[in-house]
Amino acid sequence: MAEFDLINQFFKTAVVQRDDVKLGIGDDCALLSPPPGKQLAVSTDTLVSGVHFPANTLAVDIGYKSLAVNLSDLAAMGAEPAWVSLALTLPEADHTWLKGFMQGFNELAKKYNVVLIGGDTTQGPLSITVNITGFIQADQVLKRSQAKVGDLIFVTGTLGDAATGLHSVLNNIDADEYLQYCIKRLNRPDPRIQAGIVLAQNQYSTTAIDLSDGLIADLGHICQASNTGARIELENIPLSRELKHHYNNKPDWNSIINAGDDYELCFTCAEKTAVMMQKTMESQGVSVSCIGEITDSSRVECFLNNEVIVGLTNTGYEHF
Amino acid sequence: MAEFDLINQFFKTAVVQRDDVKLGIGDDCALLSPPPGKQLAVSTDTLVSGVHFPANTLAVDIGYKSLAVNLSDLAAMGAEPAWVSLALTLPEADHTWLKGFMQGFNELAKKYNVVLIGGDTTQGPLSITVNITGFIQADQVLKRSQAKVGDLIFVTGTLGDAATGLHSVLNNIDADEYLQYCIKRLNRPDPRIQAGIVLAQNQYSTTAIDLSDGLIADLGHICQASNTGARIELENIPLSRELKHHYNNKPDWNSIINAGDDYELCFTCAEKTAVMMQKTMESQGVSVSCIGEITDSSRVECFLNNEVIVGLTNTGYEHF
Repeated sequence: MAEFDLINQFFKTAVVQRDDVKLGIGDDCALLSPPPGKQLAVSTDTLVSGVHFPANTLAVDIGYKSLAVNLSDLAAMGAEPAWVSLALTLPEADHTWLKGFMQGFNELAKKYNVVLIGGDTTQGPLSITVNITGFIQADQVLKRSQAKVGDLIFVTGTLGDAATGLHSVLNNIDADEYLQYCIKRLNRPDPRIQAGIVLAQNQYSTTAIDLSDGLIADLGHICQASNTGARIELENIPLSRELKHHYNNKPDWNSIINAGDDYELCFTCAEKTAVMMQKTMESQGVSVSCIGEITDSSRVECFLNNEVIVGLTNTGYEHF
Repeated sequence: MAEFDLINQFFKTAVVQRDDVKLGIGDDCALLSPPPGKQLAVSTDTLVSGVHFPANTLAVDIGYKSLAVNLSDLAAMGAEPAWVSLALTLPEADHTWLKGFMQGFNELAKKYNVVLIGGDTTQGPLSITVNITGFIQADQVLKRSQAKVGDLIFVTGTLGDAATGLHSVLNNIDADEYLQYCIKRLNRPDPRIQAGIVLAQNQYSTTAIDLSDGLIADLGHICQASNTGARIELENIPLSRELKHHYNNKPDWNSIINAGDDYELCFTCAEKTAVMMQKTMESQGVSVSCIGEITDSSRVECFLNNEVIVGLTNTGYEHF
């Protein structure tokens, strides 16, 4: 099948219109009008079958997640989503698969007003690369490098669900309703766009990252970029009702803090701003939890009920 | 090996600096300041090993070509290159390979003042996705859709070299100096950035495409978008001295017009503007050849010495 037929059938079905897209899919390039006075925030993520998602994941979930993980990078900067390019490498032009994929992709595109502006479809082992662009005010940016000693460390939502979901999928465990919830969290992460924008625009925070590789690894990136350490109180890490039930009062902290795929935000906040920040976030329907504090050490240390935990492997997700 | 070590070792070695890159590689997103009043031209291309280049291609050539094919899309719009993202999927973190790849990539990045602003490295079967952004004036754009009946059709450079180079590589043919030239044209296409900018800024042309899938297929895209046909005089298609020698006076027209990978520009030009255009292009060191004319038929027809050629398969490169 020619690429042009694929484009017309699956990718040109514009579900979102934006005035700043002057020329969309179908020419050598898309043409875009960036908003005056703003900066562009740009991120790229690749998902490879069998590496970033189990090979038997539904096309609709792969499509959803491909966009979600990229939106999550914009959220971690506090940017407002705008344009997305999709490079799709497929073993064959399977129409059912493509329809499912675009259904999941478009569901999120609609929710966040993102236009698919172009891309490429190629034949090969299944992988998906998404490049996303958002808008941001230069003085309202969440970086990794601005954490200060004494800042409180917060996370949105709950951690550890996706890791447990992945474990159950990979091991073909018969999923009860609690595991079903965890699998949904694995396949359908909700990018924290609104939370990122609220944090950035109100200047509640200057430092954030999204939790893709695991809390310890990702918080480690903040500490490295900010030249600080961090102290985490494990018992303050927010767990979902479902994960608590699954763990039956014996949380697997190693899994919770080292597995990725949660796509919650981890951010810092000065103590004096914390109460106001929490109120605003809650008024936006975003739960946030204080899980520790930035320190002047050179590493991320974990405590459980005030006792240091040394047995945890701090690896996070290794890309190779 | 952790992704961060790879980034620091291979990708952060900035070979180009640009004032419009406010935050480069290393955070969740890059932050960019687009130039006021200009539009952005954005394109994405994926190269899959064994599909878009022979599996035994040198890393340095893969790196070069990955950027070249994307620059070529900007050239086909008349845009000035600026920023590029690189998504690299590799079977393993092979340092020698990565060093070679980035050497080829950076050679072109330097030449065209393009900054690598970010990307992703993942583990999997070798493939490379590049997303490129350039700047363009809204009223100086080369589209596919503006060809008019009676316009002359031009191409830059020479056609057919890359196809012959590919044939010789795939069939392990012992390459003489003429085939070596063709292989170089396959592995090291020179994106026609300057030609595209001259055509667009002088408004010599409003319609162009880069020849990636083959002349007939790519000119077909122009005709489809412009709702026209085209007549090609095969004997006017420019061939390199090396390809002529290789063909020994028996050109394989089927290969020349249907194989891709030449990355020359094909563009239209009103007859009254053609002489001025040719003079300017030649003053820039770009050879251009008139190969035919836009017609009111609904297809691309090929003539050899005024006789219509019906035996040529007009397939171009099929993506699936």
